[in-house]
Amino acid sequence: MSLAELEELAGEIRELILTTVAKNGGHLAPSLGTVELTLALYSVFDFRRDKLVWDVGHQAYTHKILTGRRDTFHTLRTLGGITGFPKRAESPFDSFGVGHASTSISAALGLLIAAEIENIPRRVIAVIGDGALTGGEAFEALNHAGQLKKKLLVVLNDNEMSIDKNVGALSEYLSQLRLKPQYHRAKKEFEDFVKNIPFRDIGEKILLASKSVRHGLKSAIVPGAIFEALGFTYLGPIDGHDLKSMRDIFRKVDVIDAPVLIHVHTTKGKGYAPAETSPDKFHGVGKFDKTTGQIFKKPAPPSYTEIFSQAVIDCAARNDKIVAITAAMPSGTGLKKFAEKFPRRFFDVGIAEEHAVTLAAGMAAGGLRPVVAIYSTFMQRAYDQILHDICLQNLPVVLCLDRAGLVGEDGATHHGAFDLAYLRTIPNMNILAPKDENELRQMIFATFAQDKPAAIRYPRGAGLGVKVEAEPAEIDWGKAQVVLESAKPDVTICAVGTMVKTSTEAARLLREKDISVGVINARFVKPFDAELIKESARTSRLLVTCEEGTLTGGFGAAVAELLADERIATPLLRLGIADKFIEQGTRTQLLDLCGLTAQKISQRILERLNEMIFGFLTVTT
Amino acid sequence: MSLAELEELAGEIRELILTTVAKNGGHLAPSLGTVELTLALYSVFDFRRDKLVWDVGHQAYTHKILTGRRDTFHTLRTLGGITGFPKRAESPFDSFGVGHASTSISAALGLLIAAEIENIPRRVIAVIGDGALTGGEAFEALNHAGQLKKKLLVVLNDNEMSIDKNVGALSEYLSQLRLKPQYHRAKKEFEDFVKNIPFRDIGEKILLASKSVRHGLKSAIVPGAIFEALGFTYLGPIDGHDLKSMRDIFRKVDVIDAPVLIHVHTTKGKGYAPAETSPDKFHGVGKFDKTTGQIFKKPAPPSYTEIFSQAVIDCAARNDKIVAITAAMPSGTGLKKFAEKFPRRFFDVGIAEEHAVTLAAGMAAGGLRPVVAIYSTFMQRAYDQILHDICLQNLPVVLCLDRAGLVGEDGATHHGAFDLAYLRTIPNMNILAPKDENELRQMIFATFAQDKPAAIRYPRGAGLGVKVEAEPAEIDWGKAQVVLESAKPDVTICAVGTMVKTSTEAARLLREKDISVGVINARFVKPFDAELIKESARTSRLLVTCEEGTLTGGFGAAVAELLADERIATPLLRLGIADKFIEQGTRTQLLDLCGLTAQKISQRILERLNEMIFGFLTVTT
Repeated sequence: MSLAELEELAGEIRELILTTVAKNGGHLAPSLGTVELTLALYSVFDFRRDKLVWDVGHQAYTHKILTGRRDTFHTLRTLGGITGFPKRAESPFDSFGVGHASTSISAALGLLIAAEIENIPRRVIAVIGDGALTGGEAFEALNHAGQLKKKLLVVLNDNEMSIDKNVGALSEYLSQLRLKPQYHRAKKEFEDFVKNIPFRDIGEKILLASKSVRHGLKSAIVPGAIFEALGFTYLGPIDGHDLKSMRDIFRKVDVIDAPVLIHVHTTKGKGYAPAETSPDKFHGVGKFDKTTGQIFKKPAPPSYTEIFSQAVIDCAARNDKIVAITAAMPSGTGLKKFAEKFPRRFFDVGIAEEHAVTLAAGMAAGGLRPVVAIYSTFMQRAYDQILHDICLQNLPVVLCLDRAGLVGEDGATHHGAFDLAYLRTIPNMNILAPKDENELRQMIFATFAQDKPAAIRYPRGAGLGVKVEAEPAEIDWGKAQVVLESAKPDVTICAVGTMVKTSTEAARLLREKDISVGVINARFVKPFDAELIKESARTSRLLVTCEEGTLTGGFGAAVAELLADERIATPLLRLGIADKFIEQGTRTQLLDLCGLTAQKISQRILERLNEMIFGFLTVTT
Repeated sequence: MSLAELEELAGEIRELILTTVAKNGGHLAPSLGTVELTLALYSVFDFRRDKLVWDVGHQAYTHKILTGRRDTFHTLRTLGGITGFPKRAESPFDSFGVGHASTSISAALGLLIAAEIENIPRRVIAVIGDGALTGGEAFEALNHAGQLKKKLLVVLNDNEMSIDKNVGALSEYLSQLRLKPQYHRAKKEFEDFVKNIPFRDIGEKILLASKSVRHGLKSAIVPGAIFEALGFTYLGPIDGHDLKSMRDIFRKVDVIDAPVLIHVHTTKGKGYAPAETSPDKFHGVGKFDKTTGQIFKKPAPPSYTEIFSQAVIDCAARNDKIVAITAAMPSGTGLKKFAEKFPRRFFDVGIAEEHAVTLAAGMAAGGLRPVVAIYSTFMQRAYDQILHDICLQNLPVVLCLDRAGLVGEDGATHHGAFDLAYLRTIPNMNILAPKDENELRQMIFATFAQDKPAAIRYPRGAGLGVKVEAEPAEIDWGKAQVVLESAKPDVTICAVGTMVKTSTEAARLLREKDISVGVINARFVKPFDAELIKESARTSRLLVTCEEGTLTGGFGAAVAELLADERIATPLLRLGIADKFIEQGTRTQLLDLCGLTAQKISQRILERLNEMIFGFLTVTT
């Protein structure tokens, strides 16, 4: 394809991305930023043979459109449709599935080694953003690749952004490289000096000059010294919207038989003014009006994120030891307001969940009360740090896990389905889940009043619209709450978080069938209210647990452990997410697929009751 | 203290460390390497006010001896004694507990921020090895600290070693810095050139010269450019056994109001010839003869590590797609022999567990069959990568977790108590645990014959001394094995791994009391043999699970889930490690503390049987 044809294609692709995302929601700004970069890569490399690995993958829409998914692209992020991220099962061109950050260089190096060992001639290219580059795993991979000296190509897609503005010393360093004023200035000064050199004291003056040049050049004398130090040849920066320049450099780089990093400068949201102006708002965006750029917002109660945000601010106003940490998501986690209010007490560490958690442990060891807000799925990155740095030392760090449970359209890589299970394995950890937004506020206040490691997990999206108390009622630590009483229940449902409301609705459906049902809001998953659950088990014919999380090792497992240990033989029905990965769809669709609607819950309970009556004799000891 | 006095003290401390470790075992070589460094730090800083954070902490014996633990140092690593790593509960001078690598800069930054917010004037110093610096979390912390521009002092304790020889591009870079030949040569050439400068064509020649100098200097013109790029002022390298130089630089550095990294070059094992010669053998060492340096080895059956090593080599000889990855532990994991045999198929990635796992996933995506050998406790670092990169894509990577269960003297930070529980939360994962070394070999062969993500966990130390088959018998995937039959059992014990032998002994003790007991070797923790366990539950009066791992979410929890889901009311007794952190001691002592001896297991079973007979009526449905 000629350059003109490529540019025309770029325009068509932009239009398709824009139209689709306006309708389905999605990662608009990242994908608009990589249209030319993707076209340049595809016009030089042959990806039937070569392999392309995208980091995070939210910038890969053009890649999807170019590889046989143009006609189905309108199904983007819908149930059964095209996923929002590269996925091996979806296309042979998706060489490595992704969703979390900073894995691309590791995976690409793995693919390259595999090709070498299998004697397949193949280029492998990783495309990583400047945000994802702040994740430690990317550094680990650079360090290893630099040593192996293999012909790996890393394209640094530098748009100065993670999801919000990118942070960190490396980010500052990259902007120096982009601007390069020192380098140019210093070079010119030196040349001028030499031209005007006098014939006296020549040695001394030249030495003097060379010293000042050395100082002026510093990191710039070898552009990309940090990558060079890690064994990469650094090239760039080049304009990531200039097809010709990129094509040229991708062609020329083939002669270098060593790891190369090409620094490409792109504009997030390129070609769509609203997204260029507000790349953070159009990073991952819901439906919007393509013409005006206005994002549609259904009138809804305040989100859990907003309630979290305000509660932490209110706690911090009373307790000046409270500090807040986010990993590159001040907006997403709701800490942006905290940052405005308490700039000295706010820390955005970049995409660096491990560091975020150990940093918090260090702060707590120094007497502070840190809160770390990270989405449930990304907190998985810090399992060891939660265990080894926070819980082993029993330090009072509060982890706030937004987007717990099913997140909807972002799909399998992003569901927060495992937090209850993986956090529960850790001694000293306390785990809370609010039934509504008011209880979230209560829990945040309650947790800061304690002196313990704690994690609060809550779902994506709007609250239930309940009244939020300015002065939240106290919560008894480790105690559950009876939300629907039943004197002599056939069934007691012990529900976690979002499932309290759903279970209460299920109980109403069952009551219509003259089945007596009690509902308990667990509130705590660890330590949970063993006394109340034991009592319920002894008075009920059937005990049910219900959680928006994996059944394997989750809250229901905790109750099964309890019943076994306490020698209680009451039948237990565990409802939650089965032991498999859940794909994309709306939250409503996915909850239904997982059987977590009032209708399906009541149905499952009815079935179990029937089995008990007609199938087996069950005696409670 | 004068320099002479410090040097005398260094000698005394070395002697104490040497004598104690010869008797108790411990981390000799790392701690001998930091005697002078620690003394220099203590002679300049006041650690009643300032804070010192050790990375990993195996090099902190001098620190312990200097801070009130000289008299109790002989209890090092024994039950109830001084721990082998810094521990907050042990001393106020242990400002942050540690055991895993790469956390020190994060923790130190947290302590520094806490001091600032609390308005406490305080220096905070992190001491990190060149090995630990390859861990991504350390990079995340440098990146953040460099941006914050706070007065953090990082001492890079560069001994060219992780546990084995250090690897990675950064390691090569550090040795360039240590040697600096380019820098010195280029500088001298330039000066000579200028001195002999002729008066004709002066401009051109100087430019030419400066260009060649620029080229020659490259990364050396600003020593430590990689750290400078991350916002640190780099100083060094200096001799880490020269007390005077270190004292001078630690004093002078106080004027720099910015993050500083001081590069100190030390010798692992310094002052004890056998350790200087073989720093890897004396890294973490058992008892040895101080005079000869001979390490005592009790005659014992081959270790699980050795069996793993040979089995992987044998599999790799038959299947050229098999490749092996370690994270800085070729010796510890037993992959050193593999590396000698198959150098092109072996990869030591440095202390970088996250990268190791994603690299393996990339290799598997490229068609290879990677095995990743990482100790159980360190595999925690890669929880997200196991979930997101391996299991979500269902890629056939084999994880081999050595040192699973209780590791003994290394204590709370090192026990592999959580692997069964955290791995079990992940869909698509297969988890195996051998009852003896022959079964380990069988499992390695069986796992490579499958095409699935799998983890095999096995304990530290010697096998049971059973015959190891050259051609291992096949193992039915997902099936358990009856090891002790009982036609009409009172009790069936379903045991995992190491607990199979112990449970069989417990069964014999119970049979002496005329209690009929069957024993099952679970073999698989996921997917486990639900049919056999259901059958056993239906035929036994009491079902018992026994595992060397946490009870919370572990194998016993899996069985409790099964019984609940299958409506089986057979009483279940779950034996394993309680939901708390376990301290140090010998493996025998700790197993006893956790109730995991034949005597204690049989006792617990007897008690439960008594409760069942005299306390409650239990009916199996």
